Amino acid sequence: MRATRNTENIMEDIKQYMKGVGQQARAASRIVAQADTNAKNHALENIATAILLNTSKLLTENAKDVSSAKANGLDDASIDRLTLTEKTIKGMAEGLRQIAALADPIGEISDMKYRPSGIQVGKMRVPLGVIGIIYESRPNVTADAAGLCLKSGNAAILRGGSEAHHSNQAIAACVHQGLREAGLPETAVQVVNTTDRAAVGELITMKEYVDVIVPRGGKSLIARISEEAKVPVIKHLDGICHVYIDDEADLKKAIRIADNAKTHRYGVCNAMETLLVNTKVAAQVLPELCGIYTKKGVELRGDDASQRLVAEMKAATEEDWHTEYLAPILSVRIVANLDEAIDHINTYSSQHTDSIVTENYTKAMRFLREVDSASVMVNASTRFADGFEYGLGAEIGISTDKIHARGPVGLEGLTSQKFIVLGNGQIRV
Amino acid sequence: MRATRNTENIMEDIKQYMKGVGQQARAASRIVAQADTNAKNHALENIATAILLNTSKLLTENAKDVSSAKANGLDDASIDRLTLTEKTIKGMAEGLRQIAALADPIGEISDMKYRPSGIQVGKMRVPLGVIGIIYESRPNVTADAAGLCLKSGNAAILRGGSEAHHSNQAIAACVHQGLREAGLPETAVQVVNTTDRAAVGELITMKEYVDVIVPRGGKSLIARISEEAKVPVIKHLDGICHVYIDDEADLKKAIRIADNAKTHRYGVCNAMETLLVNTKVAAQVLPELCGIYTKKGVELRGDDASQRLVAEMKAATEEDWHTEYLAPILSVRIVANLDEAIDHINTYSSQHTDSIVTENYTKAMRFLREVDSASVMVNASTRFADGFEYGLGAEIGISTDKIHARGPVGLEGLTSQKFIVLGNGQIRV
Repeated sequence: MRATRNTENIMEDIKQYMKGVGQQARAASRIVAQADTNAKNHALENIATAILLNTSKLLTENAKDVSSAKANGLDDASIDRLTLTEKTIKGMAEGLRQIAALADPIGEISDMKYRPSGIQVGKMRVPLGVIGIIYESRPNVTADAAGLCLKSGNAAILRGGSEAHHSNQAIAACVHQGLREAGLPETAVQVVNTTDRAAVGELITMKEYVDVIVPRGGKSLIARISEEAKVPVIKHLDGICHVYIDDEADLKKAIRIADNAKTHRYGVCNAMETLLVNTKVAAQVLPELCGIYTKKGVELRGDDASQRLVAEMKAATEEDWHTEYLAPILSVRIVANLDEAIDHINTYSSQHTDSIVTENYTKAMRFLREVDSASVMVNASTRFADGFEYGLGAEIGISTDKIHARGPVGLEGLTSQKFIVLGNGQIRV
Repeated sequence: MRATRNTENIMEDIKQYMKGVGQQARAASRIVAQADTNAKNHALENIATAILLNTSKLLTENAKDVSSAKANGLDDASIDRLTLTEKTIKGMAEGLRQIAALADPIGEISDMKYRPSGIQVGKMRVPLGVIGIIYESRPNVTADAAGLCLKSGNAAILRGGSEAHHSNQAIAACVHQGLREAGLPETAVQVVNTTDRAAVGELITMKEYVDVIVPRGGKSLIARISEEAKVPVIKHLDGICHVYIDDEADLKKAIRIADNAKTHRYGVCNAMETLLVNTKVAAQVLPELCGIYTKKGVELRGDDASQRLVAEMKAATEEDWHTEYLAPILSVRIVANLDEAIDHINTYSSQHTDSIVTENYTKAMRFLREVDSASVMVNASTRFADGFEYGLGAEIGISTDKIHARGPVGLEGLTSQKFIVLGNGQIRV
């Protein structure tokens, strides 16, 4: 687009461009919805092969993105996510082959039951249609999202961060080659070819062409998309995850789980951000546990009671209970009993993942039932909240919504179920 | 509210009133979510009893609504839906008892599987939270919707048509009595106590207090609500349902099904609106079938080919294929083959319910897979698309969406599933 054009014309161009993308996606979605398992798997294998064969091309294109990003002063963590290496390229190809190896969810028939009228009723799993994915400058997401949408019989419109523009277009070329070789339309996966932000505005409001939007990225991006979208959004906001150490916990398990949930990785959504400890075991467990944290460089912020037990404990403010640190910081609170723990969680949790450590059956069952989060655990680290760990095979994101998909979203989350009725001439009387 | 107040003040009052309703619903939702099956069933039985014991009160209140509606010139069909009789009141009570008899969906645990890490992962069914239901002036929906929301562990905010105001408040009193007697909060079911339309605007945008909106009513109401809502909507737009009579159909079944689908009831969403007939059997089947329709007073509008076969056939316009008549009118088209039939359906169908009549296995399977509608049938009348007929036990509506619930929505459609993880001290390595 020529820089001399005025803004209104550019907006109109983008609108038209996105409309064309939408129409092509809708048409392609009808074809991939009917594609058989073999064709989809061939496409996935072909894309993987094309990615491997084009390694040097991908590295060259990626180098352009990385050098612009550095020139623009992008932070190190973002540069890191943007950068492709031979290893990450192999990883993309491997990921696509893993998706090919998953069972095809489409066409799956379940719950077929005869009714007194003589009809047999059940459900068939079908694609959603067209999925729009908006993500940050992480080129590997392009391959991953394309693979998941394709295997689940959907057409995809991918809109990656502008810093990854060259990398994403190079990966798109591999995706198109793989689709073409498998006899599927290239338009089944379209990578938006403009870095203008107005394209996102169009994508999330084209109800006639897009069935669902999956945003991947920071909380503010997702909140803005959810606010402005006219298309349903499968969204993942923040992960303020809790571990509650009950007075009837096995303290060895408690220390191991609380350590792992916080320190296994800091920048991930399923890391624990707040530790709750029953007052009866606080003196036994907190000093030892906090010694581990301190040794690993975790900053501790606690309520009065926990400050009395641990010298390194700073004072937590109300704000801390609301905060997803994504960093080596942990807030700690001592609670009187299970009720206080559940209250705290249902008040402050982002409904992502929360875990209790206890040997008491009734408390475990109450926690499972009463904590209103996408994943609720007993005696396990919150770090397990993940599509691979749950056996979904792959993951397009983790939903903190209750409508449609909740928790880690795999292939099934990208599908719907229709009712099917098998009759033999039955009529309503 | 005093009529002398200015509009801005009234708007502010309604905003505050609805906020209060929302806050109470959210608080009540936490309690009903944890209510055991027995308490919920007791409440349902108590409400049914209260409704029966208050029959004369309900009739008196309803008479006020009916007389105002007549004075305001409401049409006969609407008056009919508004009017309560001893029989419809008994029906309401019976409906609540049927809901009590259904299995409790809440807390249901499924798919628990061990993973290589040693954790066991599966799902637990949980309520959505707070459900807002917006419906026309049909008082029986008040009892029905209250019952479904309660049994599924949700709090409900009900907003019925203003013409049914007195009736709805009288039914609400019975609901509250039943809840109270079962030890559940009356605020678990709130009937909005203002007829101002601004209340609907608040209800559909209070994201912090309402989890899902179910509109029941005309297409324009539902379209407007979907457009303006900030809360997810389970919506049922129109039912443009098709029956396709294949050349390999058993013609006796075909005539029986096509007759039933159109003439069993005219004003319902699962009635057939367009009949597609394979050209090879059109001359055999259409004259006889159209004789039945004509005798029943069904107006026929067909394409050129069908007009040549049936004298009574008027010319159909493009508009006819897009029209949900809800009346004794049928559009008829003769198609060359299954592909043309599926193309017609996927182009014009409202994705509600479509049926094929055929004895051919491969065509039946193709139709099931390729027709993109909420209910797809083989050799059965479209009239079966119904929560009771499908064995869901009850129905809050029929969704023509693909996200979350699709097709008839029973108790399950008012629930979500969270992941639960049972561990024994496992950590991520």
